[in-house]
Amino acid sequence: MSATVHTLPNARQPSLDPVMALVSKDMQAVNSVILSRMQSDIPLIPELAGHLIAGGGKRMRPMLTLACARLLDYGGTRHHLLAAAVEFIHTATLLHDDVVDGSDLRRGKRTANIIWGNPASVLVGDFLFSRSFELMVEDGSLKVLRILSNASAVIAEGEVNQLTAQRQVSTSEDKYLDIIGSKTAALFAAACRIAAVVAERDEGVELALDSYGRNLGIAFQLVDDAIDYVSDAAQMGKDVGDDFRDGKVTLPVILAYARGSTEERRFWEDAMLGHRVSDDDLSHAKSLLQQHDAIADTLVRARLYARRAIDALAPFPAGQARSALVEAAEFAVARGY
Amino acid sequence: MSATVHTLPNARQPSLDPVMALVSKDMQAVNSVILSRMQSDIPLIPELAGHLIAGGGKRMRPMLTLACARLLDYGGTRHHLLAAAVEFIHTATLLHDDVVDGSDLRRGKRTANIIWGNPASVLVGDFLFSRSFELMVEDGSLKVLRILSNASAVIAEGEVNQLTAQRQVSTSEDKYLDIIGSKTAALFAAACRIAAVVAERDEGVELALDSYGRNLGIAFQLVDDAIDYVSDAAQMGKDVGDDFRDGKVTLPVILAYARGSTEERRFWEDAMLGHRVSDDDLSHAKSLLQQHDAIADTLVRARLYARRAIDALAPFPAGQARSALVEAAEFAVARGY
Repeated sequence: MSATVHTLPNARQPSLDPVMALVSKDMQAVNSVILSRMQSDIPLIPELAGHLIAGGGKRMRPMLTLACARLLDYGGTRHHLLAAAVEFIHTATLLHDDVVDGSDLRRGKRTANIIWGNPASVLVGDFLFSRSFELMVEDGSLKVLRILSNASAVIAEGEVNQLTAQRQVSTSEDKYLDIIGSKTAALFAAACRIAAVVAERDEGVELALDSYGRNLGIAFQLVDDAIDYVSDAAQMGKDVGDDFRDGKVTLPVILAYARGSTEERRFWEDAMLGHRVSDDDLSHAKSLLQQHDAIADTLVRARLYARRAIDALAPFPAGQARSALVEAAEFAVARGY
Repeated sequence: MSATVHTLPNARQPSLDPVMALVSKDMQAVNSVILSRMQSDIPLIPELAGHLIAGGGKRMRPMLTLACARLLDYGGTRHHLLAAAVEFIHTATLLHDDVVDGSDLRRGKRTANIIWGNPASVLVGDFLFSRSFELMVEDGSLKVLRILSNASAVIAEGEVNQLTAQRQVSTSEDKYLDIIGSKTAALFAAACRIAAVVAERDEGVELALDSYGRNLGIAFQLVDDAIDYVSDAAQMGKDVGDDFRDGKVTLPVILAYARGSTEERRFWEDAMLGHRVSDDDLSHAKSLLQQHDAIADTLVRARLYARRAIDALAPFPAGQARSALVEAAEFAVARGY
């Protein structure tokens, strides 16, 4: 055990490659659980679910479950089922999110709600959500069931909270952090925490991994928010300015609004109501963000959360797994630069 | 134990009064669980959920859990939490159903999706669904979790199945029975079955109560289908002809279509596509149903399922609880006459 965690030398850009390599065998097992458990006699279910599940996501959350299990030297296979359960919850959430937001593109592909309609997306989301609980029941740990049912309730609360804050540019930074803490970070935290449960480690370990996941989730989300306004970010599978055109109030906007003149505030209010969707409007938005250091300061905050995530790993023994998880947190932030 | 169950003398109309009286004290406890567990720091959640939960439903499913527990002389209180979990699953399903169907009225009141919008209904449904699993985890029975997570997956599958059969008047009676078996009867079955689990009875008892609930659920649904075309059914909180105007393919329509002439079939096809929504069209539909005994034969089938439900109670000792459950099944059918 070592008390401090040394970050990697800056020789190369941090990436997810080490964590992906660490879990690649386990991930194959998870993928086959995912494929077999999304089947149903109703063909529309695997068709629709498969569109999103095969759609090029990074499988970040199940990857975290697997990597944390590796960090704890867990030698069993229970986490395969549970990592699939986590991915099903995430997929269900995405399906419902796209309905709620009326989104038409995700990761550069047409969304399920556009192809099959909102009703099918709602119902297949419900199916995947139920199926995820069936997987957890199959594993049989009430502790895991508690962690993931609680995370699911928190996610839904966060989504409703965001809905009521929608297009309100005066949302405070605190409220925004609450929202992403629920919407994004709760499932990251739970995905990591359940590794401690399957490895039968004590609550201190559970809480350390929970903290790693939660802070990592916030860092990822904040960098996503920043990237949406940064032009060379095509690798996200998201167009620049999507959040802006959808009137999504994210941290860069919150900061620029708080720091802006009356006239600038009026611009942001108009924009978040959807009245400023031209390329010129987006350029103007970007120049305001620049002027008020809103992107840079969003990234400063993201670094802080990534740092906390890394610090949460201090109690664990140095080695391949810990280094890979540290680098994942560095990667989260590096994407924004 | 007695091998046959005698139905009540026909002196008065069967009603739900005996079963409601049987569980009224327990139901108060369930209602307070429901009220306390639908709370959240996000005010929209209890507001929206409360609209539907306080909206005059009969609480059939939790009532069944309570009554079955009484049938088994269960003396504890675990079923209060679990009956609330069942009602939350049901409420989540209704919220999503109304979004899927674009419904504007339920039980004579404006639906949540009309008042608060589809996004809020989807997300609050997700919240209630997650909360129901939190309640089950609090109880701690993996068996109950298995029964209800499985029922939830089956419900979602049934809904997707119905979606793909939507407006297809050539749906077979078998497929329709499959759909309502999943959509409606699965949760009735689970609500009854979990009473055997909390009362720690053997699998035979579980299966008997599952059968009671499943058959009762189908009987209720078939009679609902019939009532939609019967004029003095205002007590349902549903307008006559709602299913017809919404293009919902139910058993009366399936029977009339199967038995109809080419011209009549064309009428039903048009109607199910939503091109026949006038009062005259509804009158014509009713006369075709009459001519082909479609309502009467739907009720014949409902009687059969109610009879099976009653027979499933044969192994249980005679007494107030069994009589009340028998009468509930008789009530299910009597509503149609």
